[in-house]
Amino acid sequence: MSEIRHDVVGIGNAIVDILGRCDDAFLAEHGAPKGHMRLVDDATISTLYGAMGPAVEISGGSAANTLVGIASLGGRAAFIGKVADDEFGRIFAHDIEAAAVAFSTPPVAGKAPTSRSLILVTPDGERTMNTFLGISTDLDGGEIDAAVIRSSAIVYLEGYLFDRDDAKAAFREAVRIAKSAGRRVALSLSDSFCVDRHRAEFIDLIRNGVDILFANESEIISLYETADFEIAAANAARDTSLAALTRSAKGSVILSEGRRLEIPVEAVEKVVDSTGAGDLYAAGFLYGLSAGLGLETAGKLGSLAAAEVITHMGARPNTPLHQLARARGLLS
Amino acid sequence: MSEIRHDVVGIGNAIVDILGRCDDAFLAEHGAPKGHMRLVDDATISTLYGAMGPAVEISGGSAANTLVGIASLGGRAAFIGKVADDEFGRIFAHDIEAAAVAFSTPPVAGKAPTSRSLILVTPDGERTMNTFLGISTDLDGGEIDAAVIRSSAIVYLEGYLFDRDDAKAAFREAVRIAKSAGRRVALSLSDSFCVDRHRAEFIDLIRNGVDILFANESEIISLYETADFEIAAANAARDTSLAALTRSAKGSVILSEGRRLEIPVEAVEKVVDSTGAGDLYAAGFLYGLSAGLGLETAGKLGSLAAAEVITHMGARPNTPLHQLARARGLLS
Repeated sequence: MSEIRHDVVGIGNAIVDILGRCDDAFLAEHGAPKGHMRLVDDATISTLYGAMGPAVEISGGSAANTLVGIASLGGRAAFIGKVADDEFGRIFAHDIEAAAVAFSTPPVAGKAPTSRSLILVTPDGERTMNTFLGISTDLDGGEIDAAVIRSSAIVYLEGYLFDRDDAKAAFREAVRIAKSAGRRVALSLSDSFCVDRHRAEFIDLIRNGVDILFANESEIISLYETADFEIAAANAARDTSLAALTRSAKGSVILSEGRRLEIPVEAVEKVVDSTGAGDLYAAGFLYGLSAGLGLETAGKLGSLAAAEVITHMGARPNTPLHQLARARGLLS
Repeated sequence: MSEIRHDVVGIGNAIVDILGRCDDAFLAEHGAPKGHMRLVDDATISTLYGAMGPAVEISGGSAANTLVGIASLGGRAAFIGKVADDEFGRIFAHDIEAAAVAFSTPPVAGKAPTSRSLILVTPDGERTMNTFLGISTDLDGGEIDAAVIRSSAIVYLEGYLFDRDDAKAAFREAVRIAKSAGRRVALSLSDSFCVDRHRAEFIDLIRNGVDILFANESEIISLYETADFEIAAANAARDTSLAALTRSAKGSVILSEGRRLEIPVEAVEKVVDSTGAGDLYAAGFLYGLSAGLGLETAGKLGSLAAAEVITHMGARPNTPLHQLARARGLLS
């Protein structure tokens, strides 16, 4: 059996976020569904970029953000995801490595550009994402480094990858390797529209392989096709051994083998940009699990990490999370 | 005589800033002079980027920042500066146009990359810049659009351009065109090291062509080779008809034909990142002059714009400055 070298390895889209502000009318005019992620092609992203206001570029990607959060808490994290041999690819690689996350997927030259997401932040702090997948669609089984997976205590999978057929195969391969090595598998549902597109396959994966499920309220009710959160939660509790369900201002609900824990949110003065809230909740929770701190502390670390990231633009922490967690008495 | 179409046209380096945080020891280790701009080559910027922490990419450039500030106050602004036909060039062009600044310098393909500056922000909010000029060094007389200059009430020149020999020629050409069209010429000294490299030429230009001079305390004492601010200020008052000298927390001093005005700073809770403070002071001041608001209001607009930009990462305003100025009673 391999030695454990990483607390968590994540597999996801390697994305650079292009973040700007807009009002609700702009979203409506450009057909961008508020609060959701939609996939767009090259032409659409160009039109939208031309129309939007000034922006900032910050490395993102859902699973990648989670791993940066885990590293910021003091965990050992690794990332698998594909970038092109271009400026955005170099930005992505620099930022994730500079955040102390191991990243060894080689860049691909001459095929497609590095993935980017135009993220439009409305005055209420809600973010709406328009993602051009670029080279990310090229991830297949070949990039799933079996040695890295076998040496990681938890394999974390980003639901967005389900939007790409070959990535599904990569997903299943990663689950197979993890399971055969006795590792745990975690999955984030990522987006309710994404769930809607791939419901049956998500349920199949959750029942057969997922040990830890992350979803927000709209994702879990979409998954189980109900309007009632409690019904959806009961389904999740039946289908997986551990589920962490986030409910925005209502905090999170953790369901584990008959236990139910309610974790409050960490209060913030003003939500500047909600991008990364779910990703950072997962970071805190997974770090807490890895460190053996128990479900309640893991949930509180999730709330704390999410609170930090929504107080500024961008989906990665500005302040070292281990400092915040110590100040809050959650880590010693 | 041409019609006035722009309140201010600026000529400067078109730069994308790569902003990250570091401590003072990191600056010392990498030989970066704290609080200053140094020019670095391709190899040095690569080494530094590899060593620094996670970063964000935000359009910058001293004169470009000033023009964005003028547009944000409601002024009509145009920019002349050179980008390459690459991702950073497209980011720069998008952001300045999205900020309503006219920008028509065509991108250059296949020569050198778009200029970038690694900006390291220390815990005290001070910024230290490491600039790779790339394609900016290619600006010469050919890009100085005479029609744009003749149709602008003020031509604003960034002192950093003096670090490039051919740009000096472009500078002089711009001054000649502006003067012959009866326009005013403004100059920012940019950096005390830059002043030290080109002292005689700066003094010559200030005496013969500059109507409005911007400098901070270290720049003006470097220019006149004195340790005494008052001596330097007296020299500035002798050499130019209007000088606005900024003194960080001590506010600014405006000298104009025997008059001396002291303008206090606008208080801020915490300096997050001082990048752009001087650029935005110039924006407020030039907008005030253009709008005929008088020197005192112009200075206060400078203080207000500078205060906004130091409360967040990046050298361009996050909040529309005309709103802040109205709330403050400086604009109606």
